[in-house]
Amino acid sequence: MTAAASGDLIEIDYRITAEDPRAIADAIRVEQTIEFPFELAPEWIQQGVVGHVLSDDGRDITIGYDPGVAGGGLVQVLNLLWGNVSLFPGVRVRGLRLPDSILNDFRGPRFGIPGLRSLFGASDRPLVCTAVKPMGSSPQMLATMARTIATAGFDIIKDDHGLADQPWATWRDRVTAIAQAVNEAASETGHPSAYMPSLNVPADSLRDAAFFAKEAGAGALLVLPGICGFDAMRSLADADDLALPIMAHPSFLGSNVVNPDQGIDHGIMFGTLMRLAGADISIFPNHGGRFSFSPEELSAIQAACLAPLGSLASAWLSPGGGMTLDRIDELTDFYGIDVALLVGGALHRGDLAENARRLVQSVQKV
Amino acid sequence: MTAAASGDLIEIDYRITAEDPRAIADAIRVEQTIEFPFELAPEWIQQGVVGHVLSDDGRDITIGYDPGVAGGGLVQVLNLLWGNVSLFPGVRVRGLRLPDSILNDFRGPRFGIPGLRSLFGASDRPLVCTAVKPMGSSPQMLATMARTIATAGFDIIKDDHGLADQPWATWRDRVTAIAQAVNEAASETGHPSAYMPSLNVPADSLRDAAFFAKEAGAGALLVLPGICGFDAMRSLADADDLALPIMAHPSFLGSNVVNPDQGIDHGIMFGTLMRLAGADISIFPNHGGRFSFSPEELSAIQAACLAPLGSLASAWLSPGGGMTLDRIDELTDFYGIDVALLVGGALHRGDLAENARRLVQSVQKV
Repeated sequence: MTAAASGDLIEIDYRITAEDPRAIADAIRVEQTIEFPFELAPEWIQQGVVGHVLSDDGRDITIGYDPGVAGGGLVQVLNLLWGNVSLFPGVRVRGLRLPDSILNDFRGPRFGIPGLRSLFGASDRPLVCTAVKPMGSSPQMLATMARTIATAGFDIIKDDHGLADQPWATWRDRVTAIAQAVNEAASETGHPSAYMPSLNVPADSLRDAAFFAKEAGAGALLVLPGICGFDAMRSLADADDLALPIMAHPSFLGSNVVNPDQGIDHGIMFGTLMRLAGADISIFPNHGGRFSFSPEELSAIQAACLAPLGSLASAWLSPGGGMTLDRIDELTDFYGIDVALLVGGALHRGDLAENARRLVQSVQKV
Repeated sequence: MTAAASGDLIEIDYRITAEDPRAIADAIRVEQTIEFPFELAPEWIQQGVVGHVLSDDGRDITIGYDPGVAGGGLVQVLNLLWGNVSLFPGVRVRGLRLPDSILNDFRGPRFGIPGLRSLFGASDRPLVCTAVKPMGSSPQMLATMARTIATAGFDIIKDDHGLADQPWATWRDRVTAIAQAVNEAASETGHPSAYMPSLNVPADSLRDAAFFAKEAGAGALLVLPGICGFDAMRSLADADDLALPIMAHPSFLGSNVVNPDQGIDHGIMFGTLMRLAGADISIFPNHGGRFSFSPEELSAIQAACLAPLGSLASAWLSPGGGMTLDRIDELTDFYGIDVALLVGGALHRGDLAENARRLVQSVQKV
């Protein structure tokens, strides 16, 4: 029985606003598979390898692909989803449904929502997160800041994602100093605050850096899949000997979502793909911060982080980008409590220790 | 002396079509560096770490960044160039100038134009390349096809980029069979045809796969930096014990360039970044093929592949995407001879061996 006959297809929904959507869909189903003149392919390849239009509602067209096309893991799922078709103007992917035969190959988030609730003793509240910054600070300045925040009882204290290996604070010096400061504070408070360094490091030292961080005492990892690749994040999430929570940062991914008629829908990018790639927490810009996602786009991300996806754990939502202390209620009203609150620079207006304590208290009341 | 005073800045030109370009530029210069309320940062960080507007011509604004901000290699160069700012609608990067202090850290293409001219004995002609396909074919079918093409004297016979690890031809079986077929043909013809497998493999086996391919007899590598990450490609290019030519495929990168008011200009993406990441050959869709780059966009890619960039070698242009045999003259008229011609499916209309011979002959006459 073919995959088509068994219903075991990968289904991708496209909205095609370019002219002649059906002709473009016919180009896509060939382009994303055989890249070969359709009429020259053997009939079984035309039937069993090339994608098939499953439904055609004008500009909304769904194509089904044999799961064999995605053989090779997440990299080929990404290539099928948004490889050459990423070069087509006026094409947007609005839906992705993967059969169990594909999903079963993915472990997904190692901790997910229940895992981090248990890790941080946060059974019925949001997680409280922030970033140490600004770039230019010395490791000691960042460590002092991290200690203050951990003392206030934050769950996750991450590096600003732009902290890489700069002259003001090299990667190793920073990671070592901050991990120590956070762990000292955590042993004083009894709350298991975790330092989460940014793994924006060269590709060939990614794995070593993750283990160095763990050894230094980091309790979680920040990964930039738009730069290091989604599958590199997946490989860290899957490593049983590493086994640290992972937060995914949206750096370099924006163009795939912010152009309304072209790209990939927000929910797929910041929900489905992040979960396939093992992120326990997915950061994205909230509405009304420095960026511009709409409430509808945010609801789509929420739905995709929480929706059933094989046996994969759900992922925490982490709306960031210029969030302020007085928006906590609004955020939990909108997202509920499965949210990793990320308040950054705003924590530094006035007294950091006092702001940090106030934030932790507000969240405990939620 | 500060970097600003010495002129040793990273300069990025933005075209901002969103409302109030100057306010957005002020947000960008902070967002891409300290992600922190500007007025709360110490003065030396405001001066020496935050970006500075160097010129402001309405919607065209140039920001200069201290090279220290990009400390940490290519990953942080990418993060500075298009990290959070990728989430801004109506912002496009139109220019990137890196100081020697940054460029000196990059090896760039190992072979580049002169290196591959020498490798393939092609001192005064384009390179002749094609892909084995279609997906669904067995390793033996692909190997037979590759043998026919190598016998005709092609320089590079690559995998279709979508060939990953599918049930119809697993990665190892395919690579082993095709490499052997191409090498047997090459030893008969005396022309050093190279098989170039697609390294669209899991992140944690990328390096092993590259060495397996080399061991099996592959003469070059196809890499998908939009999926594996630019720096993973750079790490392969830099590996002295690997030392194989690298061709970069544009999969998953399209949304960064095809939306005119948002993203990164074509030349930066398919020229500058590819060279920084060590690609000897950069594939992009030609005008009039299955895709839609304009002649102006193609000229920008050409300029960026060939322009001085520190001591980095220039990269071959490889316009693909539905190219046909009768367009060779047009292609060489437009691009000159520093072009790696990529004719794919069209080679299979009629007799493959005859078409392949004709193509090689046409190129030798160029």
